[in-house]
Amino acid sequence: MNMSKRIRGLTGDEGDGWGVFYRARRMKLAGEPVTELTIGEHDIRTDPSILEAMHDAAKAGHTGYAMVPGVDALRDAVAGRVAERTGVPTTHDNVLITPGGQSALFASHHAVCDEGDIALYCDPYYATYPGTLRGVGAVATAIQTRPEEDFQPQAADIAAVAGDAVSLLINSPNNPTGVVYSRETMESIAGVCQKHDLWLISDEVYDTQVWEGEHISPRALPDMVERTLVVGSMSKSHAMTGSRVGWVIGPEEVISNLINLATHTTYGVPGYIQDAAVFALGQPELEEEVAAPFRRRREIVQRLVAGQNVVKAVPASGAMYVMLDIRATGLSGEDFANRLLDTHMIAVMPGESFGRAAAGHVRVAMTVADDALEAAFATLLDFANEVAR
Amino acid sequence: MNMSKRIRGLTGDEGDGWGVFYRARRMKLAGEPVTELTIGEHDIRTDPSILEAMHDAAKAGHTGYAMVPGVDALRDAVAGRVAERTGVPTTHDNVLITPGGQSALFASHHAVCDEGDIALYCDPYYATYPGTLRGVGAVATAIQTRPEEDFQPQAADIAAVAGDAVSLLINSPNNPTGVVYSRETMESIAGVCQKHDLWLISDEVYDTQVWEGEHISPRALPDMVERTLVVGSMSKSHAMTGSRVGWVIGPEEVISNLINLATHTTYGVPGYIQDAAVFALGQPELEEEVAAPFRRRREIVQRLVAGQNVVKAVPASGAMYVMLDIRATGLSGEDFANRLLDTHMIAVMPGESFGRAAAGHVRVAMTVADDALEAAFATLLDFANEVAR
Repeated sequence: MNMSKRIRGLTGDEGDGWGVFYRARRMKLAGEPVTELTIGEHDIRTDPSILEAMHDAAKAGHTGYAMVPGVDALRDAVAGRVAERTGVPTTHDNVLITPGGQSALFASHHAVCDEGDIALYCDPYYATYPGTLRGVGAVATAIQTRPEEDFQPQAADIAAVAGDAVSLLINSPNNPTGVVYSRETMESIAGVCQKHDLWLISDEVYDTQVWEGEHISPRALPDMVERTLVVGSMSKSHAMTGSRVGWVIGPEEVISNLINLATHTTYGVPGYIQDAAVFALGQPELEEEVAAPFRRRREIVQRLVAGQNVVKAVPASGAMYVMLDIRATGLSGEDFANRLLDTHMIAVMPGESFGRAAAGHVRVAMTVADDALEAAFATLLDFANEVAR
Repeated sequence: MNMSKRIRGLTGDEGDGWGVFYRARRMKLAGEPVTELTIGEHDIRTDPSILEAMHDAAKAGHTGYAMVPGVDALRDAVAGRVAERTGVPTTHDNVLITPGGQSALFASHHAVCDEGDIALYCDPYYATYPGTLRGVGAVATAIQTRPEEDFQPQAADIAAVAGDAVSLLINSPNNPTGVVYSRETMESIAGVCQKHDLWLISDEVYDTQVWEGEHISPRALPDMVERTLVVGSMSKSHAMTGSRVGWVIGPEEVISNLINLATHTTYGVPGYIQDAAVFALGQPELEEEVAAPFRRRREIVQRLVAGQNVVKAVPASGAMYVMLDIRATGLSGEDFANRLLDTHMIAVMPGESFGRAAAGHVRVAMTVADDALEAAFATLLDFANEVAR
């Protein structure tokens, strides 16, 4: 029996590079003392107070179908938060609650891309990006960024392929690089989108994790509000990855269509989870508790990197990661990661896992306790320096 | 800014007919004593024991990303249940856990339909069906069923359009009619699917609510296992509508592709909800408690209908609904429903809400307490008899 071409083509010819991740996971399951610095999962769990709020809502009877667009209280809370942080007037009619950020990414592209349309994204990229674009039938087309420009997308590169495209997906603070796009970068991206009439889909799920500089939401730039869809989530900001609650923020007419799409794809998000999210957004200290360890650990990493000359760190201004340039070792990211795992039981992600642009790099997720991170990171640097000698 | 043609075309030219529903909802919110017999939401909430199991799982730390295909325990439980009930060997590799049955319907069609493919469904239909098919870019094409055949689809009607189609969506026990497809119907549908090489997508979310006869899963018919995708859910069977947990059951290769799709569309289902579902499936009495009221209420309805000659009931063998033929009143379903709401504060769904085939009918959801249902139903029948005079 034939399956659809679309589903069979989800996974393209991008390098895979997840072999190290799976190998490390298997070693760990077999009882080996592997330090996993691979994926963006917090080393803490969802705060008990959030879980109690969820349970209270469920016991109070919020277990039936919730409103498909999201409950008013959560749509209002998200709208209020965005309005306050960006200065852009935003109401609940600009907000669709989704079962997680990934669902919001898919829905946003569904709303703007038809079969065969060209949809742009930036390399290196979060693993699901190209497949998400292909999932709505679009032709996923990568914009290469460069280490020498700190992986900030360049207007000229986007403009070169923008003529035939309908949308551009960006992500700042960025996974996998940890880079926060500068105001200059954001303004030049906005300019290209306006000139070439592109939708801008802005994945801002790390917006509460900025260690240096400021988070610029492109929706707040002049004349961008009508062409920007912002993807957000409780996953990273509140360590609620498993709860699958996120959102799309956009023009009222797009949200209205996205609500119709949600009726036909997901039929809403559990009401008790939405109530828990409302509670969590009302407790600013919860957000700070989740962000603080990454702020500390980034300082540890910076201090250690400064003590040697072989490994260079891409300036990590946000998110939970640091991207290391290990080209001075003469190894590919994949070879480096495999050898580090074999010799020192430390697992990091090859840059090649995230496309072509980050070849010769490895990504370190700062998702273990400070002392374990410090020890593993020091070992990683020693290993790199030995290889380079 | 242009949105995609696909999202703008989700809602087709099917009659809407949901005006009565929204009007009743507004009247109720304004404090008027409307009896709502409109939608398929239980009058009970999720059992507290299920909510406790969920809370225990969350407190125990199951709040991070769950495995995208579903947790093993739930995939095993669903597979075991299906194998036991249908006799078809089924393992967890045949099961994808989804955030609800609607998500499973969308994913199933995504897996088999490409842009422009013809996808069939039966009229009358659950409200989201045509839009779900259009959501994956398919051309949604209705098979008309007929009251004189108890709305059971006829092989000849399917065969007439099957040549150009790739899939057929069926639903037994049926919403909105309450009809359970007979073995003869299922076998003839299976025959058409084999002859015309159609995928059969079988929505079986009411499979625990069969009052008469037997539920036939077409996946269990000869030579159907490789071309059938079964959609299931905890919503109706366990009054877990708001928790959004369902599944697709199908051939291993399709499930493998659907897991890849899930990675790019939903990224899994909350682990603590899946743990709660595992608990619930292990307590057969919970299922019976949810089904029992509908069994009782159907008997009330049958007794009342037998006492008069104007309104005929479509033989309701399953699900939470009874479909009434009110053509003897001379009114359309919509006029009947509007007048019943105006004069007696009783809200039912016009058959026209579910397509063309159920014109001149109204659907009654048996989702209020027995005595309230009995009183409202008697009033409905009196009203019909007065109109008919």
